[in-house]
Amino acid sequence: MPQELRAVEWTGTGLALIDQTVLPHRTETVDVRDVDTLVDAIQRLVVRGAPAIGAAGAYGVALALIQGEREGWTDGEILAAVSRVRGARPTAVNLMVCVDRATSRLPEGVEAVLEEAAAIQREDVEANRAMGVFGADWLLDKVRLDRPLRVLTHCNTGALATAGWGTALGVIRELHARGLLEVVYADETRPLLQGSRLTAWELVQEGIPHYVQVDGAAAGTILRGEIDAAIVGADRIAANGDTANKVGTVGVALACADAGIPFLVAAPTTTVDLSTKTGDDIHIELRGEDEVLEWGGVRTAPAASRGHNPAFDVTPGRLVTALVTERGVLEVAAGQVPGEYLR
Amino acid sequence: MPQELRAVEWTGTGLALIDQTVLPHRTETVDVRDVDTLVDAIQRLVVRGAPAIGAAGAYGVALALIQGEREGWTDGEILAAVSRVRGARPTAVNLMVCVDRATSRLPEGVEAVLEEAAAIQREDVEANRAMGVFGADWLLDKVRLDRPLRVLTHCNTGALATAGWGTALGVIRELHARGLLEVVYADETRPLLQGSRLTAWELVQEGIPHYVQVDGAAAGTILRGEIDAAIVGADRIAANGDTANKVGTVGVALACADAGIPFLVAAPTTTVDLSTKTGDDIHIELRGEDEVLEWGGVRTAPAASRGHNPAFDVTPGRLVTALVTERGVLEVAAGQVPGEYLR
Repeated sequence: MPQELRAVEWTGTGLALIDQTVLPHRTETVDVRDVDTLVDAIQRLVVRGAPAIGAAGAYGVALALIQGEREGWTDGEILAAVSRVRGARPTAVNLMVCVDRATSRLPEGVEAVLEEAAAIQREDVEANRAMGVFGADWLLDKVRLDRPLRVLTHCNTGALATAGWGTALGVIRELHARGLLEVVYADETRPLLQGSRLTAWELVQEGIPHYVQVDGAAAGTILRGEIDAAIVGADRIAANGDTANKVGTVGVALACADAGIPFLVAAPTTTVDLSTKTGDDIHIELRGEDEVLEWGGVRTAPAASRGHNPAFDVTPGRLVTALVTERGVLEVAAGQVPGEYLR
Repeated sequence: MPQELRAVEWTGTGLALIDQTVLPHRTETVDVRDVDTLVDAIQRLVVRGAPAIGAAGAYGVALALIQGEREGWTDGEILAAVSRVRGARPTAVNLMVCVDRATSRLPEGVEAVLEEAAAIQREDVEANRAMGVFGADWLLDKVRLDRPLRVLTHCNTGALATAGWGTALGVIRELHARGLLEVVYADETRPLLQGSRLTAWELVQEGIPHYVQVDGAAAGTILRGEIDAAIVGADRIAANGDTANKVGTVGVALACADAGIPFLVAAPTTTVDLSTKTGDDIHIELRGEDEVLEWGGVRTAPAASRGHNPAFDVTPGRLVTALVTERGVLEVAAGQVPGEYLR
């Protein structure tokens, strides 16, 4: 992604969000000046990716304050607005963590909240850069080949999903920067195609060779030996290493385990929720069935069919070869669970 | 599917194929009177499903004979036409088996060939009915619950994919007929949506409760305990039980193994190719990348992206809990491999 483009940007008077629902064909920005528009943008996936949602949520606290002043809200009304931003999507923990962090500066006024939101963004980019280096170092140490690596990723975890650079895609960009990446297999990521629309778009911007494949192809591609490692992001990581991520992720993890190749999760430590003991405690967002039954507004399934549309799945920690954070790498499947190492 | 509808039907002068590319919204028939049209229909998936393709291929031998007579072909030209039908799709073995069987009657003339093709269709329906009973009996014996079963299937294996009734969907229909089926989770089956377009359509016709879900949801749904068993079809089964089926199948099998629930393959013995020792010897058809990169003729991925589009994957026999054929059930993962039991 060109460096000047940022998925989430404070303009001075509001929040500019790149509309990720219309990429890759159109690059449009949504100008957000009130809390309702922000909540809608988060729910419609105009902005998506746990770290990007977190940053947008932090700025949302400032928006609530500014809108409250404009419209004469009580403190209670402002806090209720903040709470709606905080709960806009239930699975990603970053949103809640970042909103809470920005809210802690509320008493100091809007400038302090904006400062905190900007710090969250800045730290996210730094964390991503660190993850890129840690992840690439770990992979190159474990997967010793006399050729560049072939990696598979699922969903979008790049600059669009973060404050910049990317988590899993940050590791991939780091490998590419070192000249040690041969090709990326990008799962298309149904139902909303974040892989073929967003990840592929970022890979094109970076000139990184890639194939888009249907999600169902991932396991076969891995079992046929076409892939050296899979790298994905996370929306919430439990204390035992169980990881909620975009639906389809656990299938990739199962295939990696069967093939004996590394399955990496790259996510900032803000994604780890130590109060969530295991994946069983993670609330999985069920989205509207039309996302599955329609395509571009045209019904593909019979009118009488029902859809089942979980947005995420949970990968057991035993399948997570390595968790890459900005603080280093935990070999989760080998017993280095976040609950013991990230207190 | 209403009993009067058949995916493949000889009209007396040609072959009527239900156009499966326009279902579920339109029910149209393609009238096939020459070999080129048949080969195109097989390759474009107007007719699909290994047993249905097999029947169409057998009638194709008659078509070649009739067209040859009409157009003054030599015997060599007729055999070349038959050979093109035989090779129209590389992975399914039924096509080759059925074409060869019809070809063996060529010296007796067109009536004998048509008789053979009709016998193939008749036997396929009988085999499907037998598989339904064997599969349901086996499942109900192994999965003992005090409620009807929740099963998952991938792709379409119903009346549309066969000469009638269905293979995996035949087992499901048998469970439903016994009042022992609660719900079917139908994977949508990207890229061509045979699940949401065709399986869901057949389930609607039968009044069978079902959810359509994206392929990526299958593993999570299975690991969360929402499914009691998965049942799929097959395009080719090697002597050791390795099974080629629609891309995405092996991911379902891995999840079933991890969750400890049965993974059933239902396929007639004509799908077993004893000359193929293992899955490594099965040629996997790579289809055009536009099936992945476009949707209804509209590009979804960036113009510069490439696609990877294997039509099938191979599920190792060790993951096939049971292979249901018209001759009974083999517990493949437990060592009952086709090469020893189906000679």
